[in-house]
Amino acid sequence: MSKKQDNKISPMEQDYNQWYLDVIQAAQLADYSPVKGCMVIRPNGYALWENIQRTLDEMFKDTGHVNAYFPLLIPENFFQKEAEHVEGFAPECAVVTHGGGSKLEEPLYIRPTSETIIWSMYRKWISSHRDLPLLINQWANVLRWEMRTRLFLRTTEFLWQEGHTAHATEKEAEQEALRMLEVYRKLAEETLAIPVICGTKTEKEKFAGAEHTYSIEAMMQDHRALQAGTSHHLGQNFAKAFDVTFQDEQGQRQFVWATSWGVSTRLIGALIMTHSDNKGLVVPPRLAATKAVVVPILSKNADSGLMLSEARKIADSTGLGRAIKVDERENLSPGWKFHHWEQRGVPLRIELGPRDLENHQVVLVRRDTGEKLFVPQDGLKDKVNGLLEEIQQNLFNRAKAYRDEYTYVVDDEETFRAKLEDPGGFLLAHHCGERECEERIQAETKATIRCIPFDAEQEEGKCLFCGKPSHKRVIFAKAY
Amino acid sequence: MSKKQDNKISPMEQDYNQWYLDVIQAAQLADYSPVKGCMVIRPNGYALWENIQRTLDEMFKDTGHVNAYFPLLIPENFFQKEAEHVEGFAPECAVVTHGGGSKLEEPLYIRPTSETIIWSMYRKWISSHRDLPLLINQWANVLRWEMRTRLFLRTTEFLWQEGHTAHATEKEAEQEALRMLEVYRKLAEETLAIPVICGTKTEKEKFAGAEHTYSIEAMMQDHRALQAGTSHHLGQNFAKAFDVTFQDEQGQRQFVWATSWGVSTRLIGALIMTHSDNKGLVVPPRLAATKAVVVPILSKNADSGLMLSEARKIADSTGLGRAIKVDERENLSPGWKFHHWEQRGVPLRIELGPRDLENHQVVLVRRDTGEKLFVPQDGLKDKVNGLLEEIQQNLFNRAKAYRDEYTYVVDDEETFRAKLEDPGGFLLAHHCGERECEERIQAETKATIRCIPFDAEQEEGKCLFCGKPSHKRVIFAKAY
Repeated sequence: MSKKQDNKISPMEQDYNQWYLDVIQAAQLADYSPVKGCMVIRPNGYALWENIQRTLDEMFKDTGHVNAYFPLLIPENFFQKEAEHVEGFAPECAVVTHGGGSKLEEPLYIRPTSETIIWSMYRKWISSHRDLPLLINQWANVLRWEMRTRLFLRTTEFLWQEGHTAHATEKEAEQEALRMLEVYRKLAEETLAIPVICGTKTEKEKFAGAEHTYSIEAMMQDHRALQAGTSHHLGQNFAKAFDVTFQDEQGQRQFVWATSWGVSTRLIGALIMTHSDNKGLVVPPRLAATKAVVVPILSKNADSGLMLSEARKIADSTGLGRAIKVDERENLSPGWKFHHWEQRGVPLRIELGPRDLENHQVVLVRRDTGEKLFVPQDGLKDKVNGLLEEIQQNLFNRAKAYRDEYTYVVDDEETFRAKLEDPGGFLLAHHCGERECEERIQAETKATIRCIPFDAEQEEGKCLFCGKPSHKRVIFAKAY
Repeated sequence: MSKKQDNKISPMEQDYNQWYLDVIQAAQLADYSPVKGCMVIRPNGYALWENIQRTLDEMFKDTGHVNAYFPLLIPENFFQKEAEHVEGFAPECAVVTHGGGSKLEEPLYIRPTSETIIWSMYRKWISSHRDLPLLINQWANVLRWEMRTRLFLRTTEFLWQEGHTAHATEKEAEQEALRMLEVYRKLAEETLAIPVICGTKTEKEKFAGAEHTYSIEAMMQDHRALQAGTSHHLGQNFAKAFDVTFQDEQGQRQFVWATSWGVSTRLIGALIMTHSDNKGLVVPPRLAATKAVVVPILSKNADSGLMLSEARKIADSTGLGRAIKVDERENLSPGWKFHHWEQRGVPLRIELGPRDLENHQVVLVRRDTGEKLFVPQDGLKDKVNGLLEEIQQNLFNRAKAYRDEYTYVVDDEETFRAKLEDPGGFLLAHHCGERECEERIQAETKATIRCIPFDAEQEEGKCLFCGKPSHKRVIFAKAY
């Protein structure tokens, strides 16, 4: 790391977009690559993805899923087989036309998602009800050619996981789609500390090729919505497109039922925009690769060798292993180091100065609140781990209170338009459910229906925009 | 899983290549994909890769490395910057010419390896000696257009890790290249139970763009060599190509020194061809996702509910968690199940029949030797874990003895040619070190120099082929 002063961060109140990019740069999470629309995920950013992967993969295995790997390249004609799917994805594909020095007979698409290649294999693997359910997940890179990109939120290449499951009945597929949405909710709320709303996408917003799409929706600090994960009940669409049938217990051939579901490196964007502040990144402890950093205060009068060895002992005593670091760098002031680790979002700072050494204490500083605590070195392990858990909870509670603050029940179009512009947020409104009406609102206001929340109560009302009857409120918002 | 009889496996003595493919199919490790040269890694195969990843990633972190992710697509002109590199890789690249519906201004190559894109970023990230060393690894897919492919061993797309490090001095880079080779040796020998020889590649065989290439070389059961991992000291070649310099402690600008190193899904091919037999796959316990399987012997007279619940208790008692399975399937005979799990390489089978239940014992059957042991249910956890460790050691020892059996010290060309044809193996021979001589031998015999072993003793001799002086024996073999 260079000694040069870390990057300045524009206040989010002043320029939210610049603030977001500044946080990413200051924390060294990602960088622009020489290839348009593609990003480099730097080690600090990748460490967040690794912990998302680890947490999620464990949850996938606990629910009986296994991982596999399917090819990056997909023959062009595979996309033609499912009508909605080709329409949705073909225009944004990157196309390989040459390989090994020759022109290919048929162009190959770099996967934008893998339903087609996976269902072409499921055709070989599934023949009996005994082969079902087939519960497969893939960790992979995908490409979708994007015109306007933004680090983590929308990049031409991104990393994700995509689950693709096959079932004997519609009911089982439906249960699977909902079960995986619940896995995503747990990941978002319990690990990333991002409160989310679970719900159903409208016809207009669903995945190209799905019967239903479910999603988790989060609110960012600029009051925009961000779709943080989706789970699709695909019906028999891909089974029919790829002729995947099984023999049921009565000996009858039937088409297989399917789901797919995914979350991506976009979650890192959601994480940044939920918790971070004008000092830089804030990472929830359960997701942080570095949960705490010890900064020894080296002064000219003090014995710096002793100070460093005490700092190392303190780090060891927390039991955090690789998740705690000692900043042993010389020629850098304590203030510079505090700033440095704050920008990188380390949840807890442990300061150790000459007086602390004398008093057998340390100073703990919380990244979330800035609160300073003077605590004895004895029993530090419990104190630190308890505090990390407290920070985790506080981040979730804070984000939830924030979201609730900017969620409005609106009952007329005028209020809808006013609130949408200022301050923005989630608008709970009645809607007729018609695509044309939804499209018109989006064209006029840029608001989309984020979802029809699962927990929306039955309530008779009228569409705010066309007056037709409605039975539930949906969530409107401007979205990333 | 279908009830249909598992696949037959051709004996390896009869048709080694067919045996290899049969083992892969029977164990459901991989499948051919609709895209020429690309494979699908099925869940059983991917589980092996996951455990390789987990083990290796831990070792990378223990040696101070961090993970990152760089773009899949690389501008064509990047390859031109390093002369040997472009010559080595450009002909085997897949080329993207269209994206988002339009022709691209400059074609993009799908990465065959990432030195160029990574060093273009290092230029931005490195400016001072304080930024060094930079120790980054990437887990990724890469593509090399292959004419003749073979599952796991040579496929157009494969998964790998590629480490790319930057150092202030030549010595540090050299130490890093050697340190990572040692990490690979440990992985191969201690986890995959594959004995390997560490050594230096000849000029002819080194990586396109490297100063030196080091490798680990293993012997397969058909006596061919397989390169299982490589580590390159890249000198200042990429730093010069991408103009990456740093200011040293004296304030002087200097070019950075580099290494790169990688292992791939090819290791799974090595694993299969080192341990497996005519019954199917054999997996060393440390790598196995399923380390043991309990097969309850359900007979018509016995209480099958009791038997299943006892089987589950026994599985729990081993403490193996997800790594032990109970085969509870009905309508399948015990014999069918034994065969099924043998083909899949599960290291240990635990049989539980009505008489075992009475005698409070189980029958353990080792996959490596077929040995049957009758052991009491009390203390099963220690017994099972001890046995798994014994199997791990036995597989390594057996493979090492096999390799040693087919390693020959040869001192004349006639013996060399005879041994190479029958039985084949590693031939320790003197060689002059000249490229032309090496090329001629390869053209005539298909043997290549696998490496100059680190532990080769200083020994005066004459090149077997041209009579020029030689100071060390090298290893010749036919290779995958």
